[in-house]
Amino acid sequence: MKSFFRPSSIAVVGASPRRIGHQIMENLVYGYKGEIYPVNPNYSEIEGIRCFPSVEDIPQSVDLAIVLVPAPATPSVVEACARKGILRVMIQSAGFAEVGEEGRAIQDRCIAIAGGAGIRVWGPNCMGMVDVPRGQFLSFMSPNIYEDGLVPGRISLVVQSGMLSGVFLTEMSRQIIGIGKVCSIGNKSDVDECDLLTYLLEDDETDAVAFYLESMPRGRLFADIARRGAKPIVVLKGGRSEAGARAAMSHTSSLAGNSRLLDSVLQMSGVTLANDFNQMIDLAGTLAASPDVPANCRAAILTFSGGAGILTCDLLDRHQLRVADLSEKSREALRRIFPTWMPVANPVDLYPAVELHGRLGVYSGAIEIALDDANVDVVIVHYPVGLEKEAIDLAAMKKKADLAGKTLLFWIVGRQDAVRLFRQKAQILGIQVYGEISRAVDCLAAAARFQRRTAVGPADAGASTQSLGDLKQFFSQDTPNRIWDEYDSKRLFSGWNIQIAKEKVVSSLAEAKTAAQDFGFPIVLKGLLPGEIHKTESGLLRLGIGAQADLEAAYQEIEKKLGGRGRILLQQQVDISFELIAGFHRDDQFGPCVMFGLGGIFSELQADVVFALAPLKQPTALDLLGRIRGHKLLDGFRGMAPLNKELMAETLVNLGNLGTAYPQIEQIDINPVAVVGGSPVAVDATVILKPS
Amino acid sequence: MKSFFRPSSIAVVGASPRRIGHQIMENLVYGYKGEIYPVNPNYSEIEGIRCFPSVEDIPQSVDLAIVLVPAPATPSVVEACARKGILRVMIQSAGFAEVGEEGRAIQDRCIAIAGGAGIRVWGPNCMGMVDVPRGQFLSFMSPNIYEDGLVPGRISLVVQSGMLSGVFLTEMSRQIIGIGKVCSIGNKSDVDECDLLTYLLEDDETDAVAFYLESMPRGRLFADIARRGAKPIVVLKGGRSEAGARAAMSHTSSLAGNSRLLDSVLQMSGVTLANDFNQMIDLAGTLAASPDVPANCRAAILTFSGGAGILTCDLLDRHQLRVADLSEKSREALRRIFPTWMPVANPVDLYPAVELHGRLGVYSGAIEIALDDANVDVVIVHYPVGLEKEAIDLAAMKKKADLAGKTLLFWIVGRQDAVRLFRQKAQILGIQVYGEISRAVDCLAAAARFQRRTAVGPADAGASTQSLGDLKQFFSQDTPNRIWDEYDSKRLFSGWNIQIAKEKVVSSLAEAKTAAQDFGFPIVLKGLLPGEIHKTESGLLRLGIGAQADLEAAYQEIEKKLGGRGRILLQQQVDISFELIAGFHRDDQFGPCVMFGLGGIFSELQADVVFALAPLKQPTALDLLGRIRGHKLLDGFRGMAPLNKELMAETLVNLGNLGTAYPQIEQIDINPVAVVGGSPVAVDATVILKPS
Repeated sequence: MKSFFRPSSIAVVGASPRRIGHQIMENLVYGYKGEIYPVNPNYSEIEGIRCFPSVEDIPQSVDLAIVLVPAPATPSVVEACARKGILRVMIQSAGFAEVGEEGRAIQDRCIAIAGGAGIRVWGPNCMGMVDVPRGQFLSFMSPNIYEDGLVPGRISLVVQSGMLSGVFLTEMSRQIIGIGKVCSIGNKSDVDECDLLTYLLEDDETDAVAFYLESMPRGRLFADIARRGAKPIVVLKGGRSEAGARAAMSHTSSLAGNSRLLDSVLQMSGVTLANDFNQMIDLAGTLAASPDVPANCRAAILTFSGGAGILTCDLLDRHQLRVADLSEKSREALRRIFPTWMPVANPVDLYPAVELHGRLGVYSGAIEIALDDANVDVVIVHYPVGLEKEAIDLAAMKKKADLAGKTLLFWIVGRQDAVRLFRQKAQILGIQVYGEISRAVDCLAAAARFQRRTAVGPADAGASTQSLGDLKQFFSQDTPNRIWDEYDSKRLFSGWNIQIAKEKVVSSLAEAKTAAQDFGFPIVLKGLLPGEIHKTESGLLRLGIGAQADLEAAYQEIEKKLGGRGRILLQQQVDISFELIAGFHRDDQFGPCVMFGLGGIFSELQADVVFALAPLKQPTALDLLGRIRGHKLLDGFRGMAPLNKELMAETLVNLGNLGTAYPQIEQIDINPVAVVGGSPVAVDATVILKPS
Repeated sequence: MKSFFRPSSIAVVGASPRRIGHQIMENLVYGYKGEIYPVNPNYSEIEGIRCFPSVEDIPQSVDLAIVLVPAPATPSVVEACARKGILRVMIQSAGFAEVGEEGRAIQDRCIAIAGGAGIRVWGPNCMGMVDVPRGQFLSFMSPNIYEDGLVPGRISLVVQSGMLSGVFLTEMSRQIIGIGKVCSIGNKSDVDECDLLTYLLEDDETDAVAFYLESMPRGRLFADIARRGAKPIVVLKGGRSEAGARAAMSHTSSLAGNSRLLDSVLQMSGVTLANDFNQMIDLAGTLAASPDVPANCRAAILTFSGGAGILTCDLLDRHQLRVADLSEKSREALRRIFPTWMPVANPVDLYPAVELHGRLGVYSGAIEIALDDANVDVVIVHYPVGLEKEAIDLAAMKKKADLAGKTLLFWIVGRQDAVRLFRQKAQILGIQVYGEISRAVDCLAAAARFQRRTAVGPADAGASTQSLGDLKQFFSQDTPNRIWDEYDSKRLFSGWNIQIAKEKVVSSLAEAKTAAQDFGFPIVLKGLLPGEIHKTESGLLRLGIGAQADLEAAYQEIEKKLGGRGRILLQQQVDISFELIAGFHRDDQFGPCVMFGLGGIFSELQADVVFALAPLKQPTALDLLGRIRGHKLLDGFRGMAPLNKELMAETLVNLGNLGTAYPQIEQIDINPVAVVGGSPVAVDATVILKPS
């Protein structure tokens, strides 16, 4: 990747004295330090630089070719690059896969040629790459973007949508947010988000990486790289609403839609999710500046307004973050600057002290007191900027915060020019500044969660999978269906230490009665039909059969419903405290995954489920349990025994190993996983194979 | 209230040539059109205006006295005002109830004097009132706030916190948001949010009212006024986190904490809730500009970036808003400006058309097409401002949108100055502009909900309450406890048409056996202890007793646990589809309220409950049912019968009437309300009286 980011020489194929072919030349001349070779057979020089008819006419060696010619002409350009030995090609022109089949064919040809010659291709249909601190614009974007004054920084961006990269730069310039590299990857025919994540995690000029992505075809690889990386990663995924429309047979797979699986798996890999552009940038900035906020951080709030202080408490509370209990030493110190009538509390309302002493000493003094307080991890300062001489020595305060390992952040209000000036000063010092209190608190909460992730432990790359058995052995029927019935599905579990309810297939009423006697009442009777997974709705389920007479009636009813098809399963009725759901889903983008969530009515209503890559290890499975919104439920309620989390985690580990071990398996549902005396028991299950 | 907002003459008690006493004079001279009378015994003139020793020395009549003298001097000023016949007094000085008991005593004295003289008091401890369109600053706030250029508009604000009113003005000036009146009400010793809501709902210069409030002691009145008003109202309530800490005996009352009751009741009254300052202002602006967005509005998205278009769809989807299905006519018209290779879709990506034709015709053309489309209610335009000559004739587009009764809104990006310029133009025309897509969609969703509210129907002021009976008749015990046991509680329901499960108090095993025979197994046995409301945890509940032998064992166990106290209740076990919860709560701020929500595990986990003022009518109760997050559940699932909503609504109406009719009742819990074959049945209940 380095030749894309730091090329010693660049050929610009399609350079011209007009339009985008000129803009890119202008941009390169502006800040690129290496050799520039314009390529265009119609000109002998552009911007005073000698122009070549073809890359092959360039006498020197070339690191990178940037291609701006129309799509149909690109394959021959890539061929020329191959002959010239240029190993990095960045195609910025459009008209490829994004416009239809014809364009896709051209794109595929380029990639085939490149692949044969060992060339890496960036694009097509992209805006290239900008390195703000270097002033290096490998892009045809309009020069007025940098003329406006971009702020160099240490957040790097990867953006799938072309126009957006320009928007991001404009926004960050307007909001004075420091930025490192901006990579527009377009159709990502070869170089994609995984390549760039790998590079940027190693890049010592980048502290955090943010992605806007519309597709993640190598999602599993992305998650794996993210999990191994130490830097904060923020992802904004576009195109969430469509996914839900996809039909799926199992609960697990239908729950995987609507980006739920993607969200879970990325979060399990330590990725922070964003839901809008500016928020994404604010998150990345916060995480870059404050990657070490403790999970249960305690905030001191220094404010000029009681109301703003109260609102900050409300917002912290909503994120389960704490308002710090100031030490007696801090209280004493604050009392010395407060008017005598005013009690000291957190939020610390500085306005009366400012009225008494003026702003000058009060703000800095209070910040120092808060930073010195052992009960405080984060200092949130509400600051009305620019009403007079700056009252805070930002550099000194930031130094003090860094020494103490604490986070200092600002919510500011004020006039336009004063706000800009303060942001500029803060940006240089690496202090985060927010225009809304809720945004500040949201970002702080994300930083606290990021910290939590790193405590989870190492990746699961080495999670063991047992050796493959023969799937055939689990079929009790001659013509196996793609959708296994409940009994076969649970037989598959037997070798994998997944607890199931006591059950027996019965072929006569007499056999049923004997089995019921053995199991003890109450029992459950189910009619199993191949391919039928909704027993309740089909009237094939009888719960709570309390005596032989009831059994007889139920048996006859189900037998009638089945009409000679399928078979009848008799099951011991377990005493369910509450219901969970577990599953396995082989995802197009993320490969084998396990799902865990609340079952019963919950799964009907709001899908409180989470996913993790399989195979997974016990600590990851335990972590997963804690990630459902209703995790409180697992700790027991109304006197019920808590879930044995170790056992549940083992079940998920085993389910992941099982699903991974048989590539033929597409989906597994265990729904419900009944919690019986705290232990998870698979009461109903469905295995679904891939279409053959 | 009018003399506070449009006084013909003002006395400024505490006017001075320095500090705040001078700032207010400067502010009044700047834009106030009536007579100004400075009052200060130490000066003969201030700002060139004759100064009086006391209000009583002013020869002319005075509409309003603004008081800035120190707190201890205020009672005598109010006395002087009373003698002078000044009926409106605005005390802006601090040092009253907000600083402690001594201050509260001074405040109380002022109010007592004022009350005796028919004087209305605004404040104390406030920043007064600003009327931006009039340039009328009845406030000591720093003149540099308006020097910066406030934008006149038709949103009015009421702010409890003093400093915040200045912050709001600065922010709105910075963001170019038009503003009408800003009222800082401080300690609201007399004039409060209810008075101002009443006034501003009638004020023909105000289109929407936004409130930042830390307390709502007259919450019920506020809700009543809001419900009758036709204008959009936005409330940001500070101090939410504290309320939850309050201990409460019933589920209903504990669920009322954490602002849940306040949120519900305000929403039921058509109020839109905000969670941060800027968001509050954006909401108010949106609702003022677009109060008629249809509930299921269909949006056309015109964008310069495929990515931004996709993200907008995702965000609309999250709010259940729809992406419009463009008409064939629109598609045809768009095809004419699109490049031939490009398919027409919504989001409408205008970038290729702009590349082809330039921005000038494309944006306006596309907006017109979208506004003409009968399938479109809202046009969301993504617009990169100021790259060249303005491409959109905003005035013409706004006029067209108004004629069509449609909403036109913008997400813009661009350089600082271009953004400001565009916002200024849009503000004058009443077009909403947003800096973040998510904020635009959030506000649009709020506008769609606001519309939904107005469809709910008239207020419940006339909801009937039945005549009061004697509570005594429901006591079967000699020494009634404040917390009634389940049996007595349900006896109270009997006159109010609230369905209960079949049950009987039994005093011997023999009696229990006979009753069980009558009811039919399975049955439930409960030990009732006065004051004990957690039967499960206390081991006083036996469910699913299937036969006489089991009954005997259960009876003996419970009898033993009771140890001679309490009594035993035998109940028919109903076949529960799912559990709900209903309740009555007499609130300090909102008076009698009913609660409705999901029961069972749900109520443990996440409190999906809503509240409404009682008494209420059937349509309001039906509306309430639809407001829980899990309302989908009520429509039936897994083949279960849906809830009979008419019956459930009737139960809530009756519960509200019952609770309202007996002022001694503080709380009622019906937990659970079992849904049996679709009908609500009170299975367990507790009535709690007020402490005597």
